[in-house]
Amino acid sequence: MTEQANRGPADPADETSTPVRPGRRRSEESRRAILAAAYELLDEAGYARLTVEGIAARAGTGKQTVYRWWPGKADVLLEALTVHARRHVPLPDTGDHAADLHAFLAATFAAATPPTGDALRALMAEAQIDPAFGARFRDTLLNPRREALGTLLARAHAADALAPQLTPATAVDLAFGLLWYRLLATREPLDDRLAALLTRTLLRA
Amino acid sequence: MTEQANRGPADPADETSTPVRPGRRRSEESRRAILAAAYELLDEAGYARLTVEGIAARAGTGKQTVYRWWPGKADVLLEALTVHARRHVPLPDTGDHAADLHAFLAATFAAATPPTGDALRALMAEAQIDPAFGARFRDTLLNPRREALGTLLARAHAADALAPQLTPATAVDLAFGLLWYRLLATREPLDDRLAALLTRTLLRA
Repeated sequence: MTEQANRGPADPADETSTPVRPGRRRSEESRRAILAAAYELLDEAGYARLTVEGIAARAGTGKQTVYRWWPGKADVLLEALTVHARRHVPLPDTGDHAADLHAFLAATFAAATPPTGDALRALMAEAQIDPAFGARFRDTLLNPRREALGTLLARAHAADALAPQLTPATAVDLAFGLLWYRLLATREPLDDRLAALLTRTLLRA
Repeated sequence: MTEQANRGPADPADETSTPVRPGRRRSEESRRAILAAAYELLDEAGYARLTVEGIAARAGTGKQTVYRWWPGKADVLLEALTVHARRHVPLPDTGDHAADLHAFLAATFAAATPPTGDALRALMAEAQIDPAFGARFRDTLLNPRREALGTLLARAHAADALAPQLTPATAVDLAFGLLWYRLLATREPLDDRLAALLTRTLLRA
């Protein structure tokens, strides 16, 4: 993973073209420590008991350092989960559309199990309540995931392998709809069997 | 619609076997006025500006009358939306599985447009934050809707009309997943064209 991939949209370094200075390198280390701490504490304590204070203490920084880059715990976690998704969901291109789609969906489902699933639920709720956070949630996490799956499905579509009634965009909605509905409503398992079933549903029989 | 169908799980009358008395009839009228007021105000002002005080004033009752039956505005609205869904989504049985499924999905999508869509979003968020409300949300609204669509899909399954990789339960998840994902994440339209596409996806080609 490159340094760039670990940075979020709020990284102040993105706004300048200055070369890397020692202070900037320390900032980047601090950011990474905070993101790692947020993810560790989520695993240990769950979303409800996660606090900016706890994240800062675990990362060995002050609260004000966290607030320098993020408005609150939801945004720290949003960036931590985005990094997590990028790291754990590959975008295969083997030429076998069914195998590629199945691998992507199975990795996506596996990356959404607890504790990540609890955090995803909490962030989706926050996105409904706070429209400004909702926009950041879509831009930072939902849309990049849509684009990744969309790339894969556009390839299948170009090879005439997509189910004939679907477009890549509606197929993306069906796939992430199933994921989110199980997370938010039924809490039924997101497993490999479901990834296989979804793959068959989205591709031409 | 029967009197029974308008009652929610919190109706104190369900706990007794006494015959209908005038006081009970007045209670029932009061309940209905409160549910109608909640729905009207949702339409006029949206979920965020809806208050128990406003609902009571519109219904011509006191706040304490609302609190006698519901813990707060989310639960009043949950019952109002459940009545709304039951009223506007028929469960056709014409023998034509595709036509029946299309009609059900189109009516479901149409019943989830604003202002109902805003309220559904708010209640789904509340369900993530308050687990006790989450259980009531599933029992009162989500599960009865799942059962209605499940009945229709079980019929198609028995006639070997369901897509071969799906069970009625996973087909229900795909359908409601698409609905909720569009409501919560993309806000893309829920229209008749989408109902047709979903019908083709769930049934055997």
